[in-house]
Amino acid sequence: MSSFTAHPADDTAIATIRILAADVVSKANSGHPGAPMGLAPAAHVLFSRFLNANPKDSKWFNRDRFVLSNGLVYYLIYTDLISLSFRLQTCFARIWILSSLLTCCWRRCALQYVLLHLLGYKLSMDDLKQFRQLDSKTPGHPEAGHTDGIEVTTGPLGQGFANGVGLAMAQAHLAATYNKDGFDLINNYTYVFTGDGCLMEGVASEAASLGGHLQLGNLIVVSLTWFDLSTTTTVSQTFDLASTISFINSTDISIDGDTAVAFTENVEQRFLSYGWQVLHVDNGDSDLGGIYSAIAEARQEKNKPTLIRLRTTIGFGSKQAGTHGVHGSPLKADDIAQLKAKFGFPTDQSFYVPKETYELYAEFGKRGGALQAQWNSLLESYAQKYPNEHAELTRRIAGKLPEGWEKNLPVYKPSDPAQASRKLSEIVLTHLVPNIPELLGGSADLTGSNLTKVKGTVDFQPPSTGLGNYAGTYIRYGVREHGMGAIANGLAAYGAIIPFVATFLNFVSYASGAVRLSALSGHHVIWVATHDSIGLGEDGPTHQPVETAIALRATPNLAFWRPADGNETSAAYYVALTSKKTPSVLSLSRQNLPNLEGSTIEKALRGGYVLHEEENEDLTIVSTGSEVSIAVEAASKLKAEGIKTRVVSLPCWLTFDQQDEQYRLSVLRSGAPILSLEALSTAGWQKYSHEQYGLPSWGASAPYQKVYERFGITGTNIASVGKKVVEFYKKQGVPVVSPLLKAIHL
Amino acid sequence: MSSFTAHPADDTAIATIRILAADVVSKANSGHPGAPMGLAPAAHVLFSRFLNANPKDSKWFNRDRFVLSNGLVYYLIYTDLISLSFRLQTCFARIWILSSLLTCCWRRCALQYVLLHLLGYKLSMDDLKQFRQLDSKTPGHPEAGHTDGIEVTTGPLGQGFANGVGLAMAQAHLAATYNKDGFDLINNYTYVFTGDGCLMEGVASEAASLGGHLQLGNLIVVSLTWFDLSTTTTVSQTFDLASTISFINSTDISIDGDTAVAFTENVEQRFLSYGWQVLHVDNGDSDLGGIYSAIAEARQEKNKPTLIRLRTTIGFGSKQAGTHGVHGSPLKADDIAQLKAKFGFPTDQSFYVPKETYELYAEFGKRGGALQAQWNSLLESYAQKYPNEHAELTRRIAGKLPEGWEKNLPVYKPSDPAQASRKLSEIVLTHLVPNIPELLGGSADLTGSNLTKVKGTVDFQPPSTGLGNYAGTYIRYGVREHGMGAIANGLAAYGAIIPFVATFLNFVSYASGAVRLSALSGHHVIWVATHDSIGLGEDGPTHQPVETAIALRATPNLAFWRPADGNETSAAYYVALTSKKTPSVLSLSRQNLPNLEGSTIEKALRGGYVLHEEENEDLTIVSTGSEVSIAVEAASKLKAEGIKTRVVSLPCWLTFDQQDEQYRLSVLRSGAPILSLEALSTAGWQKYSHEQYGLPSWGASAPYQKVYERFGITGTNIASVGKKVVEFYKKQGVPVVSPLLKAIHL
Repeated sequence: MSSFTAHPADDTAIATIRILAADVVSKANSGHPGAPMGLAPAAHVLFSRFLNANPKDSKWFNRDRFVLSNGLVYYLIYTDLISLSFRLQTCFARIWILSSLLTCCWRRCALQYVLLHLLGYKLSMDDLKQFRQLDSKTPGHPEAGHTDGIEVTTGPLGQGFANGVGLAMAQAHLAATYNKDGFDLINNYTYVFTGDGCLMEGVASEAASLGGHLQLGNLIVVSLTWFDLSTTTTVSQTFDLASTISFINSTDISIDGDTAVAFTENVEQRFLSYGWQVLHVDNGDSDLGGIYSAIAEARQEKNKPTLIRLRTTIGFGSKQAGTHGVHGSPLKADDIAQLKAKFGFPTDQSFYVPKETYELYAEFGKRGGALQAQWNSLLESYAQKYPNEHAELTRRIAGKLPEGWEKNLPVYKPSDPAQASRKLSEIVLTHLVPNIPELLGGSADLTGSNLTKVKGTVDFQPPSTGLGNYAGTYIRYGVREHGMGAIANGLAAYGAIIPFVATFLNFVSYASGAVRLSALSGHHVIWVATHDSIGLGEDGPTHQPVETAIALRATPNLAFWRPADGNETSAAYYVALTSKKTPSVLSLSRQNLPNLEGSTIEKALRGGYVLHEEENEDLTIVSTGSEVSIAVEAASKLKAEGIKTRVVSLPCWLTFDQQDEQYRLSVLRSGAPILSLEALSTAGWQKYSHEQYGLPSWGASAPYQKVYERFGITGTNIASVGKKVVEFYKKQGVPVVSPLLKAIHL
Repeated sequence: MSSFTAHPADDTAIATIRILAADVVSKANSGHPGAPMGLAPAAHVLFSRFLNANPKDSKWFNRDRFVLSNGLVYYLIYTDLISLSFRLQTCFARIWILSSLLTCCWRRCALQYVLLHLLGYKLSMDDLKQFRQLDSKTPGHPEAGHTDGIEVTTGPLGQGFANGVGLAMAQAHLAATYNKDGFDLINNYTYVFTGDGCLMEGVASEAASLGGHLQLGNLIVVSLTWFDLSTTTTVSQTFDLASTISFINSTDISIDGDTAVAFTENVEQRFLSYGWQVLHVDNGDSDLGGIYSAIAEARQEKNKPTLIRLRTTIGFGSKQAGTHGVHGSPLKADDIAQLKAKFGFPTDQSFYVPKETYELYAEFGKRGGALQAQWNSLLESYAQKYPNEHAELTRRIAGKLPEGWEKNLPVYKPSDPAQASRKLSEIVLTHLVPNIPELLGGSADLTGSNLTKVKGTVDFQPPSTGLGNYAGTYIRYGVREHGMGAIANGLAAYGAIIPFVATFLNFVSYASGAVRLSALSGHHVIWVATHDSIGLGEDGPTHQPVETAIALRATPNLAFWRPADGNETSAAYYVALTSKKTPSVLSLSRQNLPNLEGSTIEKALRGGYVLHEEENEDLTIVSTGSEVSIAVEAASKLKAEGIKTRVVSLPCWLTFDQQDEQYRLSVLRSGAPILSLEALSTAGWQKYSHEQYGLPSWGASAPYQKVYERFGITGTNIASVGKKVVEFYKKQGVPVVSPLLKAIHL
């Protein structure tokens, strides 16, 4: 294990980070009480001594991944602080602790941007000055795909931590798949900076437990704890601490012992129980050697992820306790100046970076460039020796699917037997998985119900378990939906992997936090969401989704597919696999569905199409998934009564909305009322129809046919509903205009 | 500590539970391979020896609460098993393990119903025979309020566990508030049966950590682990084990060491890290004394919740290994008979309960009746000595708010200063909390932002922390949104408590699983959801809700309120507090909102009303929350241009939908186009409007006024949009019909 060698510019560099972060925050938010930032020393040591990355090519594939899982950044909004501080005005004695604490968090928000700038990523000083301004490269929370060098979008707590587990799994998998003797092509580390806020979240607990099980030696998490000099106890980092202090002061109870208001668990013991290595740095303020050794030790441990508990002193470096202003009001110019003077910086300049700091980081930037050059030549030799593997790996890195992959998509005709769409999904996967190695599947402990494990695939497991190996492509996520979603985001963010994950549709909502960030970040993740309605039957309303579909449909950049039969299932997979920047949720039935007359893959690719045409129709029924065949049955009954009824299948709203207007208006045309039919909440269907039929409330527990009957979702009843609709609009005597014809198009 | 005394009918009773559960499942699902159920002995010991409850009055207030947190019940659906078993047909050697394992889980689903029946709750033998049938009292998963004796709705994993933490907190709080020397009025225990499936979920981790911090000595969780005789190792209970076995067999890797595919953490160590006591019962199959002692020991520990790890043998009692049929197909009649014979039951009868079993349980039922009678007289003496406390407690138990409470709701006039609706919420709470002691508030670590802590309230904390006491009414949930939601459900289910919980609106989605069950169960929970739009500004799109509102609006029996000013905030609280069976989410702004001309509490109570009226209008703008004042501004600009514009405020869709049709049609009337305006996704607004204006996609990070400008949500732009709408409908030349006029009303 190497040891730490100090560089003459280390201290200046750390001071630069601290002061620059203060300036960034100050400009954006009129300033704030200053105190050194807890993470600056650790960030400096990591970025300058360990992080293998090339600022000139932030996408170099074997770079170390760095995630700022943000801790409590998100709470600390300017006006909140003002109002909070106001309410705390009696707390003279402790306000400096609070101020420093909050400041540390505040700045952490800017920390990553400052570092990216210093290291030479595409982030200028002007960008820093635009922190949290409209259209800047430095939004309130780091957004992947928006800012050079940002790996994943963080802010919502716990997500970054779990993304880190996914990034580390991706490395382990690709290493096991492509590395060869003498070709350690994929060997990067994943570093996550986090805080107690993240560690309290369930999503982090789930990911941590799985990360331990998977023995991810390449994952190193640095977690900040605070040290309160006045009591020599570790205190909570959480926002509610502020109120506690207020409370404590107002009742004259002194802080003694542990002050955490809600987080007194033994984090070390908890992570040991998950199978992690836990290390400590007692002086995270200035012991650069200690920080260095901890990271070096963590890198040595090949069979366990490591949590480094970094203890820093609240208000370290600030001798201003009691003088910063009791209102915790924004830092005044002279206070900022004072702070700068202490670190030997010009007091009259903002956004000042000493030459030696730029030089120091430029040096490390150069190291990254050299590493990438070495890696490129290694890759070239690899191409000579392992041309097939090389071709496959570079194809995957480029995000291109194998030539002709889509020829394996199954095609159906109406005479093919009825099958559940979860089964149809399994058939698609069985055809695709052997030929698309980037597909990394998994389920939150529902493999047997989701039908996501293709025969012959090997589990992604530590070899020592005897249950699989890291080259395995099937992940056992355990009963951890939220963790699974966030891990999948990490897998996708790594590159060269398209993760698909599975649970019941109803339990996708356990993972909403991750699904939302997937859509915001444009991660190529596919959710296989089975048991998608009252059609699951006996399990009853606790498991029958009602509101889930509209929640997902209302999420921007998320493709929610509810295929009606085999061809539509193939189409859903086609679009999901070729939409590189859009996650998809495939909503699939437990019950059998017939293959429909009129469905083709090509038509379904448009997201919506006329399944059954009639000229001069009296009615159109628009439906999705398991209800389309019921709509067809109703249409046929209506036809027998002389009511001409078209049927439109609309498996994916997002895809349909992307079609040209003329096409959309031809599918949902003016002239006759349109009735929607879906065994879910009708919310949102008014966009595509004049009348809506669906669930009025919760589902029910019974064999599924009985449940469908209970809610009138049968051919007979829908025919009768359709008749009522036709009569109503005839009686109304007003021309029926397509619901798509609008004055406003957002 | 008392010790176990065997009763001659114990073994028969346990056998009855096992066989009756087998019959119940068999009838509902055509049977299943049989093996004894792991939880039967523990359930018998608990219910017969410890559980203080009166089957004749399942609502007796001081009863012990029992929660079946369900483990993996939900996976085990009939056809899944068939298909799974089919794919496992090569696994001769191990199929009996799987069969037994699955059977145990299957039956657990029926376990609670069987016990309720045997104990004499309002659940007949006929009800048992209707297991999982339409309209039965025995749906697929236990539903609170649906079946006598069911405390909380479970099934979705982890929820029951976290509900249990809430139930235990409620007991601790009410005991600290009302118990007096000699009057141990509230002293019940909360018992939770769970499995590894629940313990893997993040929501359970969050609740467990908080439960440890809160030192809930009255909480006892029994968690089942399985013991595989063939390998003498503990194996995973999870469903994916099935596939592992398949995998292992198909590749000739034998199971050795730990077979868990995704859950190898040290559960004991983890719970110790949370501050729990952990006990073990090594033989949960037949060591009734051991089970008894563990529960007794758990009851002794007053300062820690207890986890009892109960190890049972897979397939215990079943000597049929290898003979149950390799397909794991439904248990044939002769196999059931064989099983019954083994336990000395008549082989030709189903749903048979030996007389001694009924007698045994009747005895325990009698004990419960006697306990309640004792308690009733204690309560009477209490009434004499502590008339005020008695009056308050019984009022709370009856679910009645204090007389005249609503007089404290603040009323505003337009000249009152603009304030953020989160601040208006704080003002309401400041007026109500001192007078409504059943209000138990809290936040997921965002107290300073949510403004939910009323001055002078004390923290709900273990006294030893020095931070508060159990009589305190403010809960520090930590950064644990999902845990908070599920705990709040438990608090509400206990009774005599109305919990309100808080986070940012965007992070309510972290708790979707709990919110959904709250609505399904009709728990009286109030969510204070602040920072409810792009109006939060700099924090940016990771924190700005888009799809959240429609997800909550589409959830049945959930009232989503987005008040526009002070009077509407008061109205929202009024309806939320008086809707005893409906949870509410109050969506509140970070930014200041003016008090509107035309708003009153009375009007807002209807969920929607005409804020600004115009005769023969050209346009109506319907809006909510922070955008209503923008709609008013737009209307005034339009008026200046001769376009008469009404403004409708629609703070709560659910409440508005409950008004009579005539009223609704008077608010959203025919004759002129209606334009909706909300700084969120427009999804769902088509129900109430012809045209929709909102966010086309994600928000942006910047000062909030800039973000509003970016998305055109300003008086000026909305006036211009309104003009376009008016022109469009004029040009269309078709009479404009109210969107509420429909053929179908679900």
